[in-house]
Amino acid sequence: RFGYFGRDKPEVVRLMFCHVFGCLTDGQTILSVSGEEMVHMNTRDITGIRILQREGVEVVLLVSNEDMSKTLSDKLAKRTGCEVKHVGEETLNEVQKWKEEKGLDWKVVAFMGFDEPDVECLKLAGLSAAPQDAPTVAINAAKYTCHACGGHGAFREFAEHILLLKKKAKCQM
Amino acid sequence: RFGYFGRDKPEVVRLMFCHVFGCLTDGQTILSVSGEEMVHMNTRDITGIRILQREGVEVVLLVSNEDMSKTLSDKLAKRTGCEVKHVGEETLNEVQKWKEEKGLDWKVVAFMGFDEPDVECLKLAGLSAAPQDAPTVAINAAKYTCHACGGHGAFREFAEHILLLKKKAKCQM
Amino acid sequence: RFGYFGRDKPEVVRLMFCHVFGCLTDGQTILSVSGEEMVHMNTRDITGIRILQREGVEVVLLVSNEDMSKTLSDKLAKRTGCEVKHVGEETLNEVQKWKEEKGLDWKVVAFMGFDEPDVECLKLAGLSAAPQDAPTVAINAAKYTCHACGGHGAFREFAEHILLLKKKAKCQM
Amino acid sequence: RFGYFGRDKPEVVRLMFCHVFGCLTDGQTILSVSGEEMVHMNTRDITGIRILQREGVEVVLLVSNEDMSKTLSDKLAKRTGCEVKHVGEETLNEVQKWKEEKGLDWKVVAFMGFDEPDVECLKLAGLSAAPQDAPTVAINAAKYTCHACGGHGAFREFAEHILLLKKKAKCQM
Repeated sequence: RFGYFGRDKPEVVRLMFCHVFGCLTDGQTILSVSGEEMVHMNTRDITGIRILQREGVEVVLLVSNEDMSKTLSDKLAKRTGCEVKHVGEETLNEVQKWKEEKGLDWKVVAFMGFDEPDVECLKLAGLSAAPQDAPTVAINAAKYTCHACGGHGAFREFAEHILLLKKKAKCQM
Repeated sequence: RFGYFGRDKPEVVRLMFCHVFGCLTDGQTILSVSGEEMVHMNTRDITGIRILQREGVEVVLLVSNEDMSKTLSDKLAKRTGCEVKHVGEETLNEVQKWKEEKGLDWKVVAFMGFDEPDVECLKLAGLSAAPQDAPTVAINAAKYTCHACGGHGAFREFAEHILLLKKKAKCQM
Repeated sequence: RFGYFGRDKPEVVRLMFCHVFGCLTDGQTILSVSGEEMVHMNTRDITGIRILQREGVEVVLLVSNEDMSKTLSDKLAKRTGCEVKHVGEETLNEVQKWKEEKGLDWKVVAFMGFDEPDVECLKLAGLSAAPQDAPTVAINAAKYTCHACGGHGAFREFAEHILLLKKKAKCQM
Repeated sequence: RFGYFGRDKPEVVRLMFCHVFGCLTDGQTILSVSGEEMVHMNTRDITGIRILQREGVEVVLLVSNEDMSKTLSDKLAKRTGCEVKHVGEETLNEVQKWKEEKGLDWKVVAFMGFDEPDVECLKLAGLSAAPQDAPTVAINAAKYTCHACGGHGAFREFAEHILLLKKKAKCQM
């Protein structure tokens, strides 16, 4: 192909992992006397999930065991239409496994993370992002730093970035 | 009339549609274990609704089916004194119908929207606005971009903009 | 007295009225399915109330009838140690009456307000303030515009301003 | 030791006190009809606590009696793995006692505070900090002013500052 000098063919993201706390939410966790547990999400980010799904990108949400009960993560799955998976202290262990089960290469995987446990995944994924207000370790590891903060459009911004690259990749094929 | 060179007579807004999530609220949606459902609104925006109503502008609030239950939308109607209507994936379908039922032209209709589903209405309405923190698609389609964010005075700002134009229009008649 | 050229003796504030919504809170009102009603206040502002009371300034909190139920305003009174009074559409009517019952002149009254209903009081009070994020009508009427926003230190800032002026006034006596 | 000209050997923080309201939270307190009591914390700050503990720094959380019930402070202790202690009007009284019980000098104690009651501790502690949005009295007394606001990463920032100094101190030994 003319004009193609050995650069890898641009890849199209087919799977996206997103750590819920700090990315899809603003990272606030609530401690209440009644034991009520809640998360706040932004409708524009939920619309962002819908747009990715419509374009054929599977979105998998990650939550830490201590951040969210089973009841709440079930509601989250229902509201977003995504699979919600619980991860431990080091996100990579589980993500690596799920990625291989689907037979996908890191090149076609996008990852959005917020803090220390996500650092390895942010480095390995073909595309990766951290919200503007993430701790420095995550910002440094991510390939893309959002202008928006977590829970206030960061997910939507990264979703639109992914789709833009996808469109560009198609033009080059 | 002297000084009048064929420009359309400035129109006075008689009906305003406002998408609740993202415009009257900051777009945050709550997911809780108890199933509690709530929206946060700003008193200055509710005062804005009162001012429009007092000046003869009817305000109709739009909510998406998945954003709000019937119980909560009834409470919203009672608190604001506005009709609250449920819209589907594309706001235009319903808004077009309601506008025609009232026999009004787009010129005298104002529209405030936040995201993709509102784009067509934002383009058609005589006056339209999006909050400062709205996604780009809505900002590009709206005739007026608020300085304030959704749920923090954007509605009030647009309401005052409408009344200012109304006052100007009256001076020219 | 030498050096005193007819300027009124600086007055010391003895009574302060504060509109709760928008000044002591960020103006957010919650609409919930369960009917739960809550207000958020900042501990630094509550400390501000304590400091004023300790310095001999009586603080009276004003709430609108539609903003807060009797149950919640009782809790507010208990938490802050202030009298909480309900006002109607025009704050001046009631404030004027209470001020006269205490036999005080506007010169020794401070007023903090947020929106249209407070405009007359903001103009009449010897000292008056509006939070940084208040609507223009209130900003224009207030003698002092806070750097802080409502619910995020605006009350505390005004309280410290009042005490500073009080200290200056004492030095001149 | 060469290059050591009489400066005190840099000390390593072994104990940290943190006033919860305003530092670990954004200082918002909730008043509700149902009596529900809750605090919002940021996951990045909780991760900050974990990092300090892992590095051998004991973290003690301080709450004021009127800010938090026993039930909620027990939940806070469980969630963070820290001892939670109730303090009165002047934080120094209790902190001094606890510090002595542990046989530690102020040099190896870090303190994070937010308002008037913390001023003395902020001055005495070997390392001390206040969030960016703290009242002036605390900012002036603290040795370090965070770039982040309370409840939005201020604790994490101070924790990373402490660990950086610890690392530097080790290099010099």
